[in-house]
Amino acid sequence: MRRTSNRLADGREIIYFDDSVEAPERTAADRRDLPERDPRPEMRRDPLTGEWTVLAAHRQARTYKPATSDCPLCPSRPGSESEIPESGYDVVVFENRFPSLFGPPGELSGVPAESARAAGRCEVVCYTDKHDGALKDVDLTRMDTVLLALADRTAELGALPGVKQVYCFENRGEAIGTTLPHPHGQIYAFPFIAPRTQRMLEMAAAADTHPMGTLLAAEHADGARVVHRGEHCSVIVPVAARWPVEVLVVPHRQVGTIGELTEDERTEFGAFYLDLLDRLDRYHGQELPYVAAWHQAPVDTDPKLSWLHLQVFSIQRTPDKLKYLAGTESGAGVWISDVTPESIAERLRSL
Amino acid sequence: MRRTSNRLADGREIIYFDDSVEAPERTAADRRDLPERDPRPEMRRDPLTGEWTVLAAHRQARTYKPATSDCPLCPSRPGSESEIPESGYDVVVFENRFPSLFGPPGELSGVPAESARAAGRCEVVCYTDKHDGALKDVDLTRMDTVLLALADRTAELGALPGVKQVYCFENRGEAIGTTLPHPHGQIYAFPFIAPRTQRMLEMAAAADTHPMGTLLAAEHADGARVVHRGEHCSVIVPVAARWPVEVLVVPHRQVGTIGELTEDERTEFGAFYLDLLDRLDRYHGQELPYVAAWHQAPVDTDPKLSWLHLQVFSIQRTPDKLKYLAGTESGAGVWISDVTPESIAERLRSL
Repeated sequence: MRRTSNRLADGREIIYFDDSVEAPERTAADRRDLPERDPRPEMRRDPLTGEWTVLAAHRQARTYKPATSDCPLCPSRPGSESEIPESGYDVVVFENRFPSLFGPPGELSGVPAESARAAGRCEVVCYTDKHDGALKDVDLTRMDTVLLALADRTAELGALPGVKQVYCFENRGEAIGTTLPHPHGQIYAFPFIAPRTQRMLEMAAAADTHPMGTLLAAEHADGARVVHRGEHCSVIVPVAARWPVEVLVVPHRQVGTIGELTEDERTEFGAFYLDLLDRLDRYHGQELPYVAAWHQAPVDTDPKLSWLHLQVFSIQRTPDKLKYLAGTESGAGVWISDVTPESIAERLRSL
Repeated sequence: MRRTSNRLADGREIIYFDDSVEAPERTAADRRDLPERDPRPEMRRDPLTGEWTVLAAHRQARTYKPATSDCPLCPSRPGSESEIPESGYDVVVFENRFPSLFGPPGELSGVPAESARAAGRCEVVCYTDKHDGALKDVDLTRMDTVLLALADRTAELGALPGVKQVYCFENRGEAIGTTLPHPHGQIYAFPFIAPRTQRMLEMAAAADTHPMGTLLAAEHADGARVVHRGEHCSVIVPVAARWPVEVLVVPHRQVGTIGELTEDERTEFGAFYLDLLDRLDRYHGQELPYVAAWHQAPVDTDPKLSWLHLQVFSIQRTPDKLKYLAGTESGAGVWISDVTPESIAERLRSL
């Protein structure tokens, strides 16, 4: 893998991760005339629940379903300059032009109590320069480059001032609001610990053995929700799955971040991830809209409390019905599912 | 108000709440031949987050967008029998035929650890017998009947074995998945305290003064997020609003449940609620899809920790764009909003 870092016209960082150490140097300059960036996202804490909401009003101007010829994630071509100055790439990461989180921590004037600058950083990760591709179509070498890129970003962003957690994820599909079809993921460096992560830390702190270790042992013994059991990792449907399709990829050894996986572990993890994505697109016989969420250890927390896992889930209930979040889910935080975890696992195994 | 209770053909309870004490007795019998009910919803606790998911696989058979002539919430007509045997009604509540929660607490055999019967009860509340109406179209008398019906159900369901919290809500609009357009709400008697409620209880327990009292004082002093300030209640946009449209209706006096409001408080609350619903449908110049969520004190909790409020929110960002929940919201529990609470309040005040 070869890593080259550069700057875009407005000062944003762009980092190329090429599959081969012998890849050409990435030196193409961004010739666009971009306005200076001055995003000022804010965050406010809900005094009733204690949870932070990020307010990023400038994001209303963000790119919305551009024509394919104007895709900002494709390589640049003569006369059509995108976010990526090079004419081709393997994996590329760059700072989001419309970030929800930006810059160092700081106070804001003229705002309510319990609000502050939404510090941090948002990055985009392009998995391939092929516009019509998908992450599931990359080969094992490229998947490893993707994982190494995420590990690199997790370490670098985690060292920025005020960053408490690095969250890597992919939103795929128009049904969940994705506005750019080019295969890509995102990385958010949060200035707080996300609510879901906070609850996992609390559960781990209250247990003698990490809950993921207990879960792996129970699921391996039972088998009904195991999709794939490998030497280093397993693919398991959560026992209390909230979504019509939901799966975890979990390493057998407790590590907190992607970067802590050994090469053997990472290789198997990547292979299982690719295999899973392929099964998901055959689940309902259509490109499945999904969220892939990387749950990694937050910055500076007790390593015993975190266990890296990738959670992939979809709102697609049937080929033509979606799961909607309404009063119980969005109002109370209670998920009602009409699909059993066992049937999800059985379907995934059968594909 | 006159209350009459009866039974449907399969034993489900149906309760009529009529505006006038002089309303006729509701004696019409359900002549349908309904199968015996045997729903067996299950609940499972996620060992990683500690939160319960309800599994109600039988709900896949539930009524899905029926023709208007087959609406199960309209009164019965000769030759077309609905869930309501009477030929007309004011407000009616009945047990849901496809409940996500059912019956007394109990163990289940052959299931994973940390699972049990999803005890409790689910009810449907019809606000009017007019199929094409909406809650905002009812008069103040009817709104009071609705509030009295919710108070009645909160007290009765809260006394059932295993019920920990009574949650009243309305899902309105196809965009959030509503499959029956007839104006109605729902009541879920939960066998656990909902995650959002749990967090509010914890915040209140950690504060000297209830956070809602502090919030009301701060919002009244600031004014930027106040839509309506009355004698007994206020309509306020949350300082950390998560949704493109979000509003709270809050009584000034700390009470835990609708039933604890005095008649004067309830009357003003109902008037503010109606006024708010009317403004919401003019917000984007279209019928706004929304969730209305009643946050009441759970059963048998310290009354000092709860403060009744109604939260109404919508995913409609613009007349033709929705807010989607994806990686940050559904994967991490972090909401990113591109609308400021102040602009929501300003828009609502201007209508």
